[in-house]
Amino acid sequence: MPEIRQNLITRQWVIIATERAKRPDQFRTETAVRKDLPQHDPSCPFCPGNEGLTPEQTYRFPESGPWQVRSFPNKFAALSSEGELTWHRDGLKRTISGVGVHEVIVESPCHNTSLALMGDTDVEKVVAAYLDRYHKVFADRRVEAVTLFRNHGAAAGTSLVHPHSQLIGTPVIPTEVRERLEWALRFYDDNGTCIFCATLEEELRNRIRLVAENQHFVAFIPYAALSPFHLWIYPRRHSASFGAITGDEITSFSRILRTVLRKLCFGLNDPDFNLVFRTAPRESNHVRYYHWYMSVLPRLTKAAGFELGSGMFINVSRPEDSAAFLRGVNAA
Amino acid sequence: MPEIRQNLITRQWVIIATERAKRPDQFRTETAVRKDLPQHDPSCPFCPGNEGLTPEQTYRFPESGPWQVRSFPNKFAALSSEGELTWHRDGLKRTISGVGVHEVIVESPCHNTSLALMGDTDVEKVVAAYLDRYHKVFADRRVEAVTLFRNHGAAAGTSLVHPHSQLIGTPVIPTEVRERLEWALRFYDDNGTCIFCATLEEELRNRIRLVAENQHFVAFIPYAALSPFHLWIYPRRHSASFGAITGDEITSFSRILRTVLRKLCFGLNDPDFNLVFRTAPRESNHVRYYHWYMSVLPRLTKAAGFELGSGMFINVSRPEDSAAFLRGVNAA
Repeated sequence: MPEIRQNLITRQWVIIATERAKRPDQFRTETAVRKDLPQHDPSCPFCPGNEGLTPEQTYRFPESGPWQVRSFPNKFAALSSEGELTWHRDGLKRTISGVGVHEVIVESPCHNTSLALMGDTDVEKVVAAYLDRYHKVFADRRVEAVTLFRNHGAAAGTSLVHPHSQLIGTPVIPTEVRERLEWALRFYDDNGTCIFCATLEEELRNRIRLVAENQHFVAFIPYAALSPFHLWIYPRRHSASFGAITGDEITSFSRILRTVLRKLCFGLNDPDFNLVFRTAPRESNHVRYYHWYMSVLPRLTKAAGFELGSGMFINVSRPEDSAAFLRGVNAA
Repeated sequence: MPEIRQNLITRQWVIIATERAKRPDQFRTETAVRKDLPQHDPSCPFCPGNEGLTPEQTYRFPESGPWQVRSFPNKFAALSSEGELTWHRDGLKRTISGVGVHEVIVESPCHNTSLALMGDTDVEKVVAAYLDRYHKVFADRRVEAVTLFRNHGAAAGTSLVHPHSQLIGTPVIPTEVRERLEWALRFYDDNGTCIFCATLEEELRNRIRLVAENQHFVAFIPYAALSPFHLWIYPRRHSASFGAITGDEITSFSRILRTVLRKLCFGLNDPDFNLVFRTAPRESNHVRYYHWYMSVLPRLTKAAGFELGSGMFINVSRPEDSAAFLRGVNAA
């Protein structure tokens, strides 16, 4: 008998399908497409030597000598860095000017690497860059919310293979983010505790959906995972905003992120995935009811008409089985 | 300057990107994959002669002689047709039994056709089958909501190319559907009118986003379309439920649906797409504030990390340009 599970954080219902379920190892991708890429591609705008092809740099590490990480505005920015925020309403048509910030963070000079294949300290430098850019993007007073994300592979929507992440600072709080905040606030009002902290506590007690943990972070597959190997990385310490991460926590976060991505890469043969930071908008930066975390979303199945039509998902893997499988993958 | 438009029906914000915008004809798919399929495939479970490979038929038209349309339970059903609905709560984990209905409607005996290539009266037979199955699925008292959808092509999540649609009757109202109902109710409370009727009236006045119209239906691209060529087909008559469609309206709906799909097929070289009926759940079947419609969602771009992380969308086409392009495509 299939189960329908509800994610109490997002209120989404997920059908955990049994009739069409697959074993975890059946999700291995057949060909690791990135395997045959060169270390350096002279035609890649993100490779060293081509810095002149990108807009003016906003961050680089280290400050001198060959760079390891650098950022700059997206050349094909979704939002304009110039102009003021204006609201316009005409009948039922509501429009605001498309102002905001859209940056790219190149994570390595090496064309064919990925966070999974980089060393611990290299990943830490990337996370430090995320934090720097997060704060700098919020320094723009027009920005109400920041979405920090990474697209890995064609199924995840990337067009350039060179390892990079992106930040988009929007002048509105996305409706979906607002709804999560509202549900979280309601839970807090009812229970006097953060729903994310409570979820984490329960997962640490159950242990069957845990994938990895270290001093400051825990990675687990949510009870109502939307899709196979959909995974969350939570900080143990309550904090609404990624921006409040401490130095120690950066180290700890970098390590668990690398471990999780190595498990996916080795266990499933380098699948395409998205990374997404879920972090509070500016106005809810310090609230007691919201908790930042990272979502890891392997793109192993496709959302089809049912998902688009209902907002419900059909997951053809049991979260407990996927977690056990990933625990068993050696990430060393 | 990009624009950020809000869909007042779903409250979703969409960035209409200008820096990365494409002309409508640049969305043409390069190779029409379905072109080289045979009319009959002996290994296809949906082709005539293989009726024994599917679960027991629930509908066929005509009742005798060779069938034109038939339906049956999905062999790999997401939900179980047996068993009672049970609720279970354990800490933060909410689960209900996966009971419900999952049916397949085969739209033609012909393996390589599609709604766009079928004749008017053939499409009408398919819509009549949709209606029959819609009512039969709701006859199961465990079903609270029905999602009726069609996946066309690999990017739309289909695994079998033979033309077919599916219905899933769920024992819960999907959260996204509930949220739309709530927004629509709020609008009704504020304005004394259905937000869908008001939107339709505005689009008929503006005309710049219209794609096609006939006696009972209007097809247009929403002001805040989520993705290129995202399209809505609205009944002119207010009605919360597809189940209340009349005989005349079935004819009219079949014609406009076929016209729209032909425009997409000829104009964009048979792109992959999803069709989704948005119709009220059982308990809201007759409300004055909700209005059924169909969404047509061509899968020409991919949702990436930004969309998954924020719930906002980046649309690289202007709805007005896409609509003008489609108006210009001869669907005859």
